[in-house]
Amino acid sequence: MDEAGFAALLNEFRAALGEEWVWSGDSAMFPYRDSFSPVWNTGEERHASAAVAPANVEQVAQVVRIARNHRVPLFPISTGKNYGYGGPSPNVNGSVVLDLKRMNRVLEVDEARAFALVEPGVSYFDLYNHIQERGLKLMLDVPDPGWGSPIGNSLERGVGYTMPHFRDHFGSHCGMEVVLPDGEVMRTGMGAMPGSGTWQEYPYGFGPDPAGLFAQGNFGVVTKMGFRLLPLPEYYRTGAITVPRRRDFVKLVEHVNYLSDSGLIGEVRFSSPLTALFADPAFFALATQEGGPADADMDAAAEAAGLHSWQVELQFFGPEASTQANWDYAKDRILSDIPGALAMDGDHFPLPASEEQRLNTTQPFNTTIRRNGALGVPSLGIWEIVRDDGHVGFFPVLPRTADAVFEVQRVLGDALKEFPTLPPFFNALTMPLFWHTHTFQMVFAPSIRHDDPAHNDITHRAMKKAVAVAAEHGWGDYRAAPIYQDDVSATYSFNNHILRRFHEQLKDAIDPDGIIAPGRGGIWPRRFRA
Amino acid sequence: MDEAGFAALLNEFRAALGEEWVWSGDSAMFPYRDSFSPVWNTGEERHASAAVAPANVEQVAQVVRIARNHRVPLFPISTGKNYGYGGPSPNVNGSVVLDLKRMNRVLEVDEARAFALVEPGVSYFDLYNHIQERGLKLMLDVPDPGWGSPIGNSLERGVGYTMPHFRDHFGSHCGMEVVLPDGEVMRTGMGAMPGSGTWQEYPYGFGPDPAGLFAQGNFGVVTKMGFRLLPLPEYYRTGAITVPRRRDFVKLVEHVNYLSDSGLIGEVRFSSPLTALFADPAFFALATQEGGPADADMDAAAEAAGLHSWQVELQFFGPEASTQANWDYAKDRILSDIPGALAMDGDHFPLPASEEQRLNTTQPFNTTIRRNGALGVPSLGIWEIVRDDGHVGFFPVLPRTADAVFEVQRVLGDALKEFPTLPPFFNALTMPLFWHTHTFQMVFAPSIRHDDPAHNDITHRAMKKAVAVAAEHGWGDYRAAPIYQDDVSATYSFNNHILRRFHEQLKDAIDPDGIIAPGRGGIWPRRFRA
Repeated sequence: MDEAGFAALLNEFRAALGEEWVWSGDSAMFPYRDSFSPVWNTGEERHASAAVAPANVEQVAQVVRIARNHRVPLFPISTGKNYGYGGPSPNVNGSVVLDLKRMNRVLEVDEARAFALVEPGVSYFDLYNHIQERGLKLMLDVPDPGWGSPIGNSLERGVGYTMPHFRDHFGSHCGMEVVLPDGEVMRTGMGAMPGSGTWQEYPYGFGPDPAGLFAQGNFGVVTKMGFRLLPLPEYYRTGAITVPRRRDFVKLVEHVNYLSDSGLIGEVRFSSPLTALFADPAFFALATQEGGPADADMDAAAEAAGLHSWQVELQFFGPEASTQANWDYAKDRILSDIPGALAMDGDHFPLPASEEQRLNTTQPFNTTIRRNGALGVPSLGIWEIVRDDGHVGFFPVLPRTADAVFEVQRVLGDALKEFPTLPPFFNALTMPLFWHTHTFQMVFAPSIRHDDPAHNDITHRAMKKAVAVAAEHGWGDYRAAPIYQDDVSATYSFNNHILRRFHEQLKDAIDPDGIIAPGRGGIWPRRFRA
Repeated sequence: MDEAGFAALLNEFRAALGEEWVWSGDSAMFPYRDSFSPVWNTGEERHASAAVAPANVEQVAQVVRIARNHRVPLFPISTGKNYGYGGPSPNVNGSVVLDLKRMNRVLEVDEARAFALVEPGVSYFDLYNHIQERGLKLMLDVPDPGWGSPIGNSLERGVGYTMPHFRDHFGSHCGMEVVLPDGEVMRTGMGAMPGSGTWQEYPYGFGPDPAGLFAQGNFGVVTKMGFRLLPLPEYYRTGAITVPRRRDFVKLVEHVNYLSDSGLIGEVRFSSPLTALFADPAFFALATQEGGPADADMDAAAEAAGLHSWQVELQFFGPEASTQANWDYAKDRILSDIPGALAMDGDHFPLPASEEQRLNTTQPFNTTIRRNGALGVPSLGIWEIVRDDGHVGFFPVLPRTADAVFEVQRVLGDALKEFPTLPPFFNALTMPLFWHTHTFQMVFAPSIRHDDPAHNDITHRAMKKAVAVAAEHGWGDYRAAPIYQDDVSATYSFNNHILRRFHEQLKDAIDPDGIIAPGRGGIWPRRFRA
């Protein structure tokens, strides 16, 4: 596109949206760079050329039609945070960011039927405040930090901290409105039936349901989305259980699976009391040794230190007596099966929690992030643990077994020894996250520094290696920044990449010129593949 | 297609599958007619011309390629039951039924991780027996009857009787293998990553998820599917609550919503003790009167009879003490809020249930169908309530409120007075089903009789009228027989039928000639639209 064409494009946007809602030029576009980028200020960084902020769905459709006429790719964002996964930066240089921040209305929250309908610019803070102001007895499941949006987070398949089916933010959506690449407005599920009152109660409607195409993809611009909410439980309770030996983790995981799949517990935190020994160089060497330590050596270290090998923190939501019954059951079940296991009652109180209860850091779930998350309160606690200027994230999905955890510890631990300046993310104590409803994930989140390209290069190469080595073992990433989306997509290669080829066929049918986010999720339309 | 072409087609199928797995001719094709059809033996009945039964996914792909070469539509079925919704009969006359009954392997059931992976020909009986034979502590959520298959039922968005997220059979799937219209084999979610062990633990993989396109649709032939299973709860408990006045239903529904969305109860049954008064002509006239009865008149009738207006039966799954705590909570919550409400403890016992406990009909959940379903035991109990030679089903989705229930009672009650020979499905006591996770549905299931075309014509016209009138009020059908799919699809008309037009665009891209089930879900490919 030449300068005159670009100027004409911006003029059309200005005519449609108003002067003040169209931006271009380096300083205006600075906020649309990914400040967590490992390729910051390098040739690999992806830069948008302009940004536009429509006020409503009609303006979104107008923007899409204008972009289509000019064959310019749009990159839709909701609040544009998504740090660690590319922030607001596009897959394709020269894209126009379609910033939906002005569409920030909470359209409906129904207490008796436990749902919300929101626009993309609504943040978790906004929705939380709306619920508090109206005094509704509903609980959000929030990611951290809370300035992201339910729509953006769920389309990225973000997760939270409460009960299993609410933690999967995409899975808990119900009903979607989308502007398609030709500017038409579509609604999924019961939203397709005029006058239906059940758009947020039944997700499927009749016939096929295309909703899944709009997560981590580029088939349209989501402009409204409904979410199921957890009725505010009357009571909250925590407890922790420790087990002495390394192999006890096998049974511990199986019991936690049972409790979770039975709906008795919320998100759990696995950890190891042995982390306290990392300061001892001999223990550190053992926990990070090539090929992984022998169980007996780890058990000997634990015994010498008088520490248990593993801990799990549990949380319970519900009527007070039910949370007690569920915690008693969890203790009985695990302590009767694992010799030497110990249980510690945590704190417990009616909901909503007082400020003091919420910030009580002497208890399980004792970081600000986790406690706020567990109680459905959005915060910015994540910033307490961001190192350097930010990080990128690789969160591979692995089987929900202890043996899979041990294998990831060993395989990725060994693979990343090539990068000795990075922290030993994968070592004999690396724990799985149990965020998504039924699966484990691991964390690899190496930092970036704006003024240290050599460090960033290490992070960048380590990310690519981790993705590749993990894939050799069947552990796939669930979410990625644009600069890694092709790498990750390539690892989902069953039958000569048929899933990607199928998506390309569909994309070509509705958006051959790639007006909506070409390359997102690894899907390139015909024009860009050629 | 001429006779020679048809013979050549069958010969190719025979060469691919073997002589014995290809059928044609009236007598061989009789089992592929819909024996519940209201257009039985009329010109509207849809007839397949042949049927083929491949043994494995490679043969499915071969069948698809042969059909593609001959431009002949296939109609895939799993076990082919689907009674009330068209049975095994296709949308298009002359289709070849792709009968997947031979693909009946239970591929994997994992107790500690609570999932199953099955082929389409596996019935609920098969999967149940597999679990029992291995002594696995897992519970199925079954529809009734149990000869249907988890794959077929979930692709039709069937439902069951246990905990909310398991009752939605499509929603509880995790991972899918599909033969696409060009014969390529695709896997969704983690199945797209070779060597992944998490196909049944994480549904999304990376990038968009097309799985929703394959339910009630025609984008491919599903050849494998994973399902999340409920770990066998230790204990089962029932209880019932009645409320005296008609308007008490408003609060009763809200409390049940809370209990269900909080994960404290399984499926519920709403009913009315006043049903006992239907034999009294005066009461019958009141309950079916045009415009609906006044609340005061219904309350007077209830009081005169010494009966309560509504009843809800609750069921609890979990550790024994937890089921007691949850039931106590439900009683306290409802009885303290609704004056005159009464609670009755039901039976309760450890799982698995004994035969005697399972068939105890003196308790809430006291029909064979419901009790078997509640306990996850497949049965053929549905046949106890099939009238005449069968029925067709219209199950509109409505808001999860009492007022919506009252409105449907009145509106559809009045609309169907045109058909006085049908039972008064919609009257002042018609109750919602709470099968799907978050929504209510109503039942309209008029019967058919093979030897009574006049009766069938009434049923057929009543179905069409019910679909149309319900849609005017925003109540949409969730599932339909081929002969009603265009009617139902047409009611999901938001923005000039954009959802259907979007699906048509996608269908044209991958299957313009309509090799896979043209017309299914209301989606016709280019060749058939022209």
